[in-house]
Amino acid sequence: MSAPRIAIDAMGGDEGVRVTIAGVALARRRHPALTYALYGDGPQIHAALKNHPNLSAVAEVIHTDRVVAATDKPAHAIRQLRGSSMGLAIQAVKDGTAGAAVSAGNTGALMAMAKLALRTLPGIDRPALAAFLPTLGANDVVMLDLGANTECDTRNLVEFAVMGAAYARTVLDLATPRVRLLNIGSEELKGTDAIRDAAAILRAAKDLPLSFDGFIEGDKLGSGDADVIVADGFSGNIALKTAEGTARFVTDVLRKAFTSSLRSKIGFLISKPAMQLLRVHLDPNNHNGAVFLGLNGIVVKSHGGADEKGIANAIHVAARLVEDDLTARIAEDLARMGGTVGREELAAK
Amino acid sequence: MSAPRIAIDAMGGDEGVRVTIAGVALARRRHPALTYALYGDGPQIHAALKNHPNLSAVAEVIHTDRVVAATDKPAHAIRQLRGSSMGLAIQAVKDGTAGAAVSAGNTGALMAMAKLALRTLPGIDRPALAAFLPTLGANDVVMLDLGANTECDTRNLVEFAVMGAAYARTVLDLATPRVRLLNIGSEELKGTDAIRDAAAILRAAKDLPLSFDGFIEGDKLGSGDADVIVADGFSGNIALKTAEGTARFVTDVLRKAFTSSLRSKIGFLISKPAMQLLRVHLDPNNHNGAVFLGLNGIVVKSHGGADEKGIANAIHVAARLVEDDLTARIAEDLARMGGTVGREELAAK
Repeated sequence: MSAPRIAIDAMGGDEGVRVTIAGVALARRRHPALTYALYGDGPQIHAALKNHPNLSAVAEVIHTDRVVAATDKPAHAIRQLRGSSMGLAIQAVKDGTAGAAVSAGNTGALMAMAKLALRTLPGIDRPALAAFLPTLGANDVVMLDLGANTECDTRNLVEFAVMGAAYARTVLDLATPRVRLLNIGSEELKGTDAIRDAAAILRAAKDLPLSFDGFIEGDKLGSGDADVIVADGFSGNIALKTAEGTARFVTDVLRKAFTSSLRSKIGFLISKPAMQLLRVHLDPNNHNGAVFLGLNGIVVKSHGGADEKGIANAIHVAARLVEDDLTARIAEDLARMGGTVGREELAAK
Repeated sequence: MSAPRIAIDAMGGDEGVRVTIAGVALARRRHPALTYALYGDGPQIHAALKNHPNLSAVAEVIHTDRVVAATDKPAHAIRQLRGSSMGLAIQAVKDGTAGAAVSAGNTGALMAMAKLALRTLPGIDRPALAAFLPTLGANDVVMLDLGANTECDTRNLVEFAVMGAAYARTVLDLATPRVRLLNIGSEELKGTDAIRDAAAILRAAKDLPLSFDGFIEGDKLGSGDADVIVADGFSGNIALKTAEGTARFVTDVLRKAFTSSLRSKIGFLISKPAMQLLRVHLDPNNHNGAVFLGLNGIVVKSHGGADEKGIANAIHVAARLVEDDLTARIAEDLARMGGTVGREELAAK
């Protein structure tokens, strides 16, 4: 690939084209070597670009008036692969004119289109949605699958572990990431057959560039005890959303408590910088950018409600993965995995 | 049943006999009509009782030196049904000498013993573990199953909904509790077959004393949008623990933020009452006491790490359920359920 180019679905975010373009402009300042292809409503994009001459210089606008709606079912959305802003951004990755696609649109549609256009890597059954969560440890933790696959078997979980580890090696710069499976207890007997069998395979797979550390429970997600947490898409999504919802819940209760009396209001004003630190640490925009792992190409999903800083972070994730050629790394690790446990054994599970 | 008596496994808690007995003494002040049977090491219990003459007057001590260990597997633990402090407390419920049993011991062992000794209610396939979570709404929310059943089918989920609603009617004093199924999206197409089928049955069951309001996602657990949240035991456990862990995580980050500078330390001191309000609201001891629903008798599980206030809350839950005869209420609702959808239809799912 020549100069890395990022394909942006300019129509996906809830906050509108203006915020998306402002996010791209912010990313441009952080990654001056990148160029951009902006897909969506031409007049709206050009109007938004007027505020960002630095971005205009390295961005191409590709007009389309077709947009995948938030309510479109995946099966319906894939018919728009060839005309919609989301579909065109993915096609650019397939054609090799872009190194990655970024969209804040309909997750199910994005997944379905990406899978159809890019196909899974050789040997991969299903792609998984991965993102970073904040921890009390030295680095964030990679968590997957966050909802791409409602039901997962042993093979899916093992592949998620390998892909998640490759992601952590790339973005967190760890030689042997500590991988754990999300479970309802730490003892070997706990959980479903799929989880226990996946644990047995990962425990036996000694020459993979990861350290399998057993199970982790829901109350330890942010403990820093793991670099990669693997779950089926159902419980992974429940865990992610519960964590987000609880963080918001606690800060809401706190806000109420702080405004309950004059005294606490004064205390609040004095400790405002501390509260801002908390807000920065928990702000989902600072952890924005989930990636579909296991495809022949990089597709990053931004939160629908992301602000410009969030959009810029999603592009930052995409840029890192292009620079470090994540797709090739995952393919390499999967090849090693095949050598370790035998693809037949894995397929038989 | 005559004067309600509560059977206490005095050996279950991590904090020791002294804290457990102090918790019972605290409950005694709140429920002066109750009497207690205390199972466990006689000398230790008698020593602890010396500090609580009011409790001593209404408590019988039944000595046993056999204790179910935290590491005992359920299959091994049930052999101790007839001799251990946990087993004897459950037997007292079976024999009718106690209205409810309370234990802070090994959850798996407690579940296995309770199921073996008390059996499930007629028509109930599996019992479920239910507890209250704090919300921003007018009342707490009942959540089940929290880990008793790793895998659940349609019938289990429907029965959990009926049992959870009966629990909410009893303890929250609501005529028609709002019931929702935990899912990874709010649209009808989301989730597993079991969840979608359970939703269809609950939507059709019009004459049950509950209002089925569809799905709820992980980020809305504490929103106050539901009185009862139903999940399989795997994702329910993940959600509960993730909520607990995230609440702790946020307060840890906050504590760090507040001690990061002299200014924020001063702010912290001034707003201490507000912070204490938050602590009270989130303290798991204030929400302690999970109940196994669907058995011929009431068994309440206390957190292993509960303090005396937590133990007293678990006993309060048990007392409420005995007074309101929860077991009979659930049996009634299940009979109505049978009339509504046909037991065959449910069994065929």
